[in-house]
Amino acid sequence: MKIAVCQINSVIGDIEGNFKKIKNFYEKALQFRVDLCVFPELSLLGYNPQDLLEKKEFRRKCFDYNEKLAQISREVPLLFGSIMEENDEIGIHLYNCAFVARDGKIEYAYKKVLLPYYDVFDEVRYFKSGKENSLYEFNYKKIGISICEDIWNDKDYFKMRRYHADPIEEQIKNGAELLINISASPYYYGKRPERMELLRLISKKSGAPLVYCSLVGANVDLIFDGGSMCIDKFGEIVKACKFYDEDFIIFDTDETSNQEIIIERTFEEEIYEAICFGVKQYAKQTGFSKAVLGLSGGIDSAVVCCIAANVFGKENVMPVLLPSMYSSKGSVDDAIKLCENLGLKFNIIQITDSYYEIIKSLKPIFKNLPEDTTEENIQSRIRGLILMAISNKFNAMLLSCGNKSELAVGYATLYGDMCGALEPIGDVYKTDVYRLANYINRKEEIIPKEILVKAPSAELKPGQKDQDTLPDYEILDKILKLYIEKNLDYKDIVEIIGDSELAKKILSMIDAYEFKRKQAPPVLKVSPKAFGTGRRFSMISQWRKNSFT
Amino acid sequence: MKIAVCQINSVIGDIEGNFKKIKNFYEKALQFRVDLCVFPELSLLGYNPQDLLEKKEFRRKCFDYNEKLAQISREVPLLFGSIMEENDEIGIHLYNCAFVARDGKIEYAYKKVLLPYYDVFDEVRYFKSGKENSLYEFNYKKIGISICEDIWNDKDYFKMRRYHADPIEEQIKNGAELLINISASPYYYGKRPERMELLRLISKKSGAPLVYCSLVGANVDLIFDGGSMCIDKFGEIVKACKFYDEDFIIFDTDETSNQEIIIERTFEEEIYEAICFGVKQYAKQTGFSKAVLGLSGGIDSAVVCCIAANVFGKENVMPVLLPSMYSSKGSVDDAIKLCENLGLKFNIIQITDSYYEIIKSLKPIFKNLPEDTTEENIQSRIRGLILMAISNKFNAMLLSCGNKSELAVGYATLYGDMCGALEPIGDVYKTDVYRLANYINRKEEIIPKEILVKAPSAELKPGQKDQDTLPDYEILDKILKLYIEKNLDYKDIVEIIGDSELAKKILSMIDAYEFKRKQAPPVLKVSPKAFGTGRRFSMISQWRKNSFT
Repeated sequence: MKIAVCQINSVIGDIEGNFKKIKNFYEKALQFRVDLCVFPELSLLGYNPQDLLEKKEFRRKCFDYNEKLAQISREVPLLFGSIMEENDEIGIHLYNCAFVARDGKIEYAYKKVLLPYYDVFDEVRYFKSGKENSLYEFNYKKIGISICEDIWNDKDYFKMRRYHADPIEEQIKNGAELLINISASPYYYGKRPERMELLRLISKKSGAPLVYCSLVGANVDLIFDGGSMCIDKFGEIVKACKFYDEDFIIFDTDETSNQEIIIERTFEEEIYEAICFGVKQYAKQTGFSKAVLGLSGGIDSAVVCCIAANVFGKENVMPVLLPSMYSSKGSVDDAIKLCENLGLKFNIIQITDSYYEIIKSLKPIFKNLPEDTTEENIQSRIRGLILMAISNKFNAMLLSCGNKSELAVGYATLYGDMCGALEPIGDVYKTDVYRLANYINRKEEIIPKEILVKAPSAELKPGQKDQDTLPDYEILDKILKLYIEKNLDYKDIVEIIGDSELAKKILSMIDAYEFKRKQAPPVLKVSPKAFGTGRRFSMISQWRKNSFT
Repeated sequence: MKIAVCQINSVIGDIEGNFKKIKNFYEKALQFRVDLCVFPELSLLGYNPQDLLEKKEFRRKCFDYNEKLAQISREVPLLFGSIMEENDEIGIHLYNCAFVARDGKIEYAYKKVLLPYYDVFDEVRYFKSGKENSLYEFNYKKIGISICEDIWNDKDYFKMRRYHADPIEEQIKNGAELLINISASPYYYGKRPERMELLRLISKKSGAPLVYCSLVGANVDLIFDGGSMCIDKFGEIVKACKFYDEDFIIFDTDETSNQEIIIERTFEEEIYEAICFGVKQYAKQTGFSKAVLGLSGGIDSAVVCCIAANVFGKENVMPVLLPSMYSSKGSVDDAIKLCENLGLKFNIIQITDSYYEIIKSLKPIFKNLPEDTTEENIQSRIRGLILMAISNKFNAMLLSCGNKSELAVGYATLYGDMCGALEPIGDVYKTDVYRLANYINRKEEIIPKEILVKAPSAELKPGQKDQDTLPDYEILDKILKLYIEKNLDYKDIVEIIGDSELAKKILSMIDAYEFKRKQAPPVLKVSPKAFGTGRRFSMISQWRKNSFT
């Protein structure tokens, strides 16, 4: 059986556009005389349509286009992802479905059984769980069709499972000879080998070939990296789609693997690609062809600048140096050198005069009160203001250069360096930003080594260093990972790092700065737990008031 | 049977504090020799603890304090809200519970059955639904205990129900002689009469008295207005708790009503109180005792200023006038008059010099490009910057003065007038802001009538009026309500307002400015559908690209 795996980039809400894309790929598949043509989860709608699903006009349009897809279908089954409504005595229920269209009709529908509701997922908000699903029979073959999460509950793979039901186990028990899972699975580092091992295990133990067809694209903070896979009945990967691009492959289910397919890359390579792709998709879908960013001479903005040059092309990046009276000459020189290495035109705008003008206007209120972080924030906010002005004037996307460590402990100025449409490295710890920088420099020195070796500083007052108020980033990032990603208890963290006062301080900071993150730009998720929709804490929680006992 | 209804203000995460509060109220109840003492939903944790529930140390502390509450319990049953864990073959499940502690032990536990997952609710993210619940038998009486949403699925009240199960119907069928519902029910205008009618209907048709014990307080955007009720078996309200304050009442279940209890107020009165309460709670829990805001001379900032004076006291409000070269003399005079009427000290900071200094610094980049919204945004952002500086220096909470109509159509500057810890009237349409102003002026002119009669203007360029680019607020707000709250289709809206081009323009604007709302301050929810966590749309959705056909 020859299966066309169509890894497409569906755009949220663009039903016509997605329909055309599916139609084009399907017609191509027909030319290749395949037996079956497969598209990803919710391929007609894009993932995740969120509250659009609550709009009657949106749902109606989806149903209309389900019908249009049925109409274009010929003898080759067209398997796509969309939605279906059903009524019962209490009202209308929506299902996340895999449809098979053939010979002008929808001849089969599978309703997603396992609906994720953790981290960034809210599927229970929209969908009802499918309870009874049959196998799809075609060409004398029984095919087990499932959707994303449905395959992520294998009792041999997971020590702790989330759900009681296992639709795949059920399909295998009912005699499925081929498994097809259509997906929209958000990327994070470490998910690729996980995904591969799980899928290989399932095909191996069931003795059924497995087709995993996933969406590629990005929805603001979520990156769908592609990498669809076809696995033979021995659990070996026969073919895989590209990462970060639409792709079309044909898999003969009788084929077996004769080569090793490597889907894993180094951490640096993987997240660099993921971030570039995420920025590119965001810019494309919001119509930005230019980017602007502030270059401080530090490592974070240097890395973001390289990402921007990669994504937008050097003629479309506007780096701006915004020195104040506290900026070292080194910082300015380093930033200039970076621009030269990248071949970027840059601008320098001194913020000193504006700063003193603002300070002067505040004098009647501030009188002789001593300087504090207020004045530091003013500098950061003048920079934000100027960058936004350039963004507005030239319709350039402002990239915020903060990293995850800063966001975690509130080492950032709201409406200052936190201004931006997107925070590309907002899910990358400071220590990992250095790894990214070294990756960028792997062939030649693009980021000047001065930037790599100097002590991090916000340069908002004379002689300031990050480590005046924060511990070394190595230890800070260690604590952050344990608390944010591993979700460990305070006690366990103290046991690991051996410093209860430091743990107390850092954990308190993380919790205290929830209000800044609430108004932060979206960050591209590249870790299992990113700040944003997948992490939900109240800004006024009093939990840390006395929870260190 | 005498029941003490304890309407308390539990603080999220403050387990010790909430424990002490429950203990104090319980001891008071003991002195009154009641038979049963009732507390709201999740009274030990606060509502909503969100991802704190994913922390082992947090859950463990809850369990410890469940035990401590058991230990302080005497012969009078203590009914409180907390959580419980259960293990099965796939792992740990958490339940939202009503516990009865008595004589040193937990003697009964009810697990919430209906878990809301729409609008602002995400309970399915955290809790499993209780399936089998028995009645609580005490003093030869069968008591049906339930939690919030459990009572909101009555088939005689709702034409369209959300759930198949109806735990209350089940309890009545099983012979419940008394119904107790413990709640944490977020306020919006119109919910009070709904709630009252529903509860009255249920007690009337079951012939069982009903105690409705709800939380009072606010969690950032969500306001819990209190108003616990005791209803006799004929469906009449016997007693009710205060709104917006902790309260303690004793209800004798044999009592019947002999007076009419009015819980409804005018729209203006209700939402004015709700907003003041929301601001006050936010300030209290974040430690702000002062407020700062920018006074433009317009209606929005005037109303917010009155709210601030009410909440913080006149000596703790810092209104700042920030005129530019485009500010009319009238605006400044009107703002000053407002301050005088309220007895507030104010400051005036001219932003003109700062504006020209910023413009000068941008000249090398902007060259001779024509002025556009960039320059308007710069003015707004200088104001935001100065207000944030004052907020930082004096530790005063910055109130953002935007209304719902502006937020909807993006008529606001990100990092400019959108700066703030909270947007008190961000869920109030412009036309309703006028109603609030008239309510504030009901006894005497506090908001100068000049402010009430002049045409709304952002005053960011000469002679600018809101209605240069927006339709009249009457018609704008009508469209907004139909689209945002009623969730009507484009076609239906056109049918009602009779102007397809206008509908197209406004709907496109609402969808296009999702990115601004993503970084907006939290708004206090006073309508059934507020911007914020209860409304989830992707910033990059392409739905409106071609969905007007």
